[in-house]
Amino acid sequence: MAEALESQIDLTALPKEERLARMRHSAAHVLAEAMLELFPDAELGIGPPIDTGFYYDFRLPRALVPDDLVWLEERMRGSLAGRHPFVMSALTKDEAARRWAGQPFKLDLLADLEEGAVTQCTHAGFTDLCRGGHVAHTGEIPASFKLTSIAAAYWRGSEKNPQLQRVYGALFETAEELDAFERQLEEARRRDHRRIGRDLKLYDLFDEVGPGHVVWLPAGATIRRELERWIEDLELDRGYQHVRTPVVAKSELYKRSGHWDHYQEAMYPIMEREGEEYVLRPMNCPHHIMVFESELHSYREMPIRIAELGNMHRWEKSGQVSGMSRVRIMTLNDAHIFCTGIEQAESEVEGVLQLMEEVYGVLGLKNYRYRLSLGDPSDTTKYVHNPPMWEKGEALLRRVLQRARLPFHEAVGEAAFYGPKIDVQFQTAAGKDETLVTIQVDFHLPNQFGLEFVGEDGERHQPIIVHRGILSTMERMVALLIEEYEGNFPLWLAPTQAVVIPIADRHVEYAREVAAQLKSHRLRVEVDARNERMNGKIRDAQLRKIPYMLVVGDREAEAGAAAVRVRGGGDLGAVPVVEIAAELRRQRDEKSLMLWNHPAQ
Amino acid sequence: MAEALESQIDLTALPKEERLARMRHSAAHVLAEAMLELFPDAELGIGPPIDTGFYYDFRLPRALVPDDLVWLEERMRGSLAGRHPFVMSALTKDEAARRWAGQPFKLDLLADLEEGAVTQCTHAGFTDLCRGGHVAHTGEIPASFKLTSIAAAYWRGSEKNPQLQRVYGALFETAEELDAFERQLEEARRRDHRRIGRDLKLYDLFDEVGPGHVVWLPAGATIRRELERWIEDLELDRGYQHVRTPVVAKSELYKRSGHWDHYQEAMYPIMEREGEEYVLRPMNCPHHIMVFESELHSYREMPIRIAELGNMHRWEKSGQVSGMSRVRIMTLNDAHIFCTGIEQAESEVEGVLQLMEEVYGVLGLKNYRYRLSLGDPSDTTKYVHNPPMWEKGEALLRRVLQRARLPFHEAVGEAAFYGPKIDVQFQTAAGKDETLVTIQVDFHLPNQFGLEFVGEDGERHQPIIVHRGILSTMERMVALLIEEYEGNFPLWLAPTQAVVIPIADRHVEYAREVAAQLKSHRLRVEVDARNERMNGKIRDAQLRKIPYMLVVGDREAEAGAAAVRVRGGGDLGAVPVVEIAAELRRQRDEKSLMLWNHPAQ
Repeated sequence: MAEALESQIDLTALPKEERLARMRHSAAHVLAEAMLELFPDAELGIGPPIDTGFYYDFRLPRALVPDDLVWLEERMRGSLAGRHPFVMSALTKDEAARRWAGQPFKLDLLADLEEGAVTQCTHAGFTDLCRGGHVAHTGEIPASFKLTSIAAAYWRGSEKNPQLQRVYGALFETAEELDAFERQLEEARRRDHRRIGRDLKLYDLFDEVGPGHVVWLPAGATIRRELERWIEDLELDRGYQHVRTPVVAKSELYKRSGHWDHYQEAMYPIMEREGEEYVLRPMNCPHHIMVFESELHSYREMPIRIAELGNMHRWEKSGQVSGMSRVRIMTLNDAHIFCTGIEQAESEVEGVLQLMEEVYGVLGLKNYRYRLSLGDPSDTTKYVHNPPMWEKGEALLRRVLQRARLPFHEAVGEAAFYGPKIDVQFQTAAGKDETLVTIQVDFHLPNQFGLEFVGEDGERHQPIIVHRGILSTMERMVALLIEEYEGNFPLWLAPTQAVVIPIADRHVEYAREVAAQLKSHRLRVEVDARNERMNGKIRDAQLRKIPYMLVVGDREAEAGAAAVRVRGGGDLGAVPVVEIAAELRRQRDEKSLMLWNHPAQ
Repeated sequence: MAEALESQIDLTALPKEERLARMRHSAAHVLAEAMLELFPDAELGIGPPIDTGFYYDFRLPRALVPDDLVWLEERMRGSLAGRHPFVMSALTKDEAARRWAGQPFKLDLLADLEEGAVTQCTHAGFTDLCRGGHVAHTGEIPASFKLTSIAAAYWRGSEKNPQLQRVYGALFETAEELDAFERQLEEARRRDHRRIGRDLKLYDLFDEVGPGHVVWLPAGATIRRELERWIEDLELDRGYQHVRTPVVAKSELYKRSGHWDHYQEAMYPIMEREGEEYVLRPMNCPHHIMVFESELHSYREMPIRIAELGNMHRWEKSGQVSGMSRVRIMTLNDAHIFCTGIEQAESEVEGVLQLMEEVYGVLGLKNYRYRLSLGDPSDTTKYVHNPPMWEKGEALLRRVLQRARLPFHEAVGEAAFYGPKIDVQFQTAAGKDETLVTIQVDFHLPNQFGLEFVGEDGERHQPIIVHRGILSTMERMVALLIEEYEGNFPLWLAPTQAVVIPIADRHVEYAREVAAQLKSHRLRVEVDARNERMNGKIRDAQLRKIPYMLVVGDREAEAGAAAVRVRGGGDLGAVPVVEIAAELRRQRDEKSLMLWNHPAQ
């Protein structure tokens, strides 16, 4: 039996990533060691390093509670102080099977191993089935780690297998890095759109309606309406033609488009009746192609920009849907631009990038970078096979990005099944990476559908389609905005823009007059006439993140004014109601990211 | 064999309806007589009188052509001149079976008859299986009839049976009445939204998308967008809260609501996956009930008016869908008002009637009357059984109509399955009767869902729901408006509001400036820069029913003006572009039913 100490490797000579992986992997062993002390009957799963630390899966006699993590962490620190060496050794499958008798998951792993490839690792008397990759001894695991959370996980990730308890640990080389990570976690938790969405009554989910089927409550629907009308108007001004197309089509439409071959798993089940197969659409492209096909167009009319706030339906597993950001039914700010050729397509892609920059400027979203998403010629199941088409499309998009002097990186295997695209990747305030904007150039669908237009030469030609989304789906965009703004929407998007708070009962009537005056400008204003103390009402308005609180008492009533308090602090004193109306209208109409005297967020 | 002449009945003594029915029924026999002359092998179906005349179904060796109708009509007039008496006689089933050998449809009818109830009718040597109800002789059939059209019809109305050819005839007592009917038919044809919708490119239907799945082309989508934003704003001003809810739910939601029992045949097929049943929603009520249920409400917040432009899905047989007026997927201007009790519900119904009158005033739709649609206590499959609930609801609606002094009639068996309603019945310009507005009062669904609110007494109470639609579905409303306006939309709804027509090529640049100036006010303006003669362009603009044609040449360019031509005639001469912009904005913002100098329609 060959033994080997891992200390033969000089940690400091390794790249940081490799070093961290070894520390994290080693820490997972130490966690398992501690867990066996807590539950001698614990059944061990796997314990790999991850981006931010490590985890280990266990089947345990009871559910873990947060106090368990405190106890486990303490024991782990004890093990670190012991500087126990990690020793690797090889053993036969028979030896391993005897050693792991009573540990069903380890035996399951063992079954996959070849004779001669079975190794184990021992430290402080604890042995784990292991391929190696440790630090020399437990003392080389930094103290800057923390057990962060408990989650449920299926063995080998399948719902058919037993459910285990997963303990997550964060581990970094320095206390500063661990702190920064914890702050980011806390930030993500604080900005979580699911929590804020519930607190502000923006949306809800119901078991009887179904997972991933978002119900937009009045406040959330208000934000969505403002966004939708705004983008629709911007697009109409730029020559887009908005259409409305139905959410269902015959399955043959998707057989013709190719979605059936490349996308069927993500589609809702077929509805069959009167001998026909119908299906909820997974994408809007084929419907917009129908619009283009509804008459024969001349080159003179092109580019033809068909746009829609189009409903799409994608079957995500019920375990994978989450809040508004991962849903089954969504509305995409979609458009398909039918172009006469490469030159027109390039100019349209440029136009889309300009519109995108304008839109994201208004929303105050700045933290993005461009990705050129390419196909993967080696993956013939994921992508349609047509090398010259991919080359032309990729070259076109690359030229546009280069000419616009936009920095970008290229990513193989991120394209749509029918063509390459430019993705705009956002780094969110909560630390996530999200694709919102995407611009695709498509020679494939025009070919599938045999699309034609009449060229300047009087002959029929095949158009190129530019697919594009600016605001992404309304679900994902509003989820993102909630997190970016932390629920502090600028005035134009705020579901309630101001609340009028009467100081005493005798001021309720005047409060209603003030509200009526503001409402006559279509400002969204409420009166808080509840039988509560004024401070309580102000606190409630702050919790509801309403931009303005307008307090009215005797003096204000006499002066035709209201005392203006701004969300997030700031008391402007009494201001005439006509001035308040003018200022609020200005902020709304200009879509200002500032409130009266300071940034909205 | 007893024989009886129908002449025993004095026609003039009969009510007009009965008299007409006899004339029309008799004419159908005469049509069949003529058809047998044309096709001795014709297989006869049935030939009943209808509201405007009669029809007869035949299986024929070839498809009929319009000339056949001319020939048949001439032969019928010959038979009228012959004054042949109609003679009824009884016969046994055996005798009848022998007589109708070779006439499969007659034998099929015969099979349903009891022995002793078989009668036939003979005139001019032609015999038909018949229950009677004729004029005395063919001379009593008025000459004021006409064979109008040929249609396809299935035997006994079922797609599983053979397809027959149906010949329609119009028949009235006087030539004046027949003329009036023909004028109305012509009017309906001229206003048909399917023809105008195609000519103006408002919508389209595609086989691959599916029957009844309307695709709104850019021009139609523009009309719809204007209507939707307008009604949404009106509702928001009146305290409605708009929501957005998903088009799918689990089938259990409709089991709970009762739709499953009363409505399933009209629903799309179930989608089953991951062990759950999902279904496209047939109505929005249950989703809005979820919104109400998302928190516990106090009486102070009520009435709560939940509104949505909600997508609904109803399975009409593919043979029954038609244009935009009879579709499978539709968007309803829907709302559900949750009320504390009878008093509040009454006041809300009044408010809905007021909003309705305002909305229809703006649209210029005046030809309507009110119907109180009641349940039918004898029909327990169609209506939920709860007599006191029906009584309360019907009394409430009756009181509102009476107090508002609105004339109305009552109709048994026209209610929704869960409660009575007020329907507003429109008499359309094309002569059809359409229900657009409906207001329902509902004690049933609150009970099914166990809805509650906290009353003034601090206890839980059950709310009442008022269901209401003002604009109907967008599909039906736009179909109706197309027909009412004959495609001549007022400015605010016109897809293209003005077209600028340069007199010569050298005026194209100025034409574009004029268009840009108007577009900066978000007016929908095009430039017709085609290489065509000016008169051709004006004719095209008239055909496209564009409200204004702005002709520009040297003089106009010099004066910063355009020569204004109004749709439907009228030349206003040169008008400064700033004045044109101001006038068009005014017409748009006021939703004027007038163009510059005359009614839009």
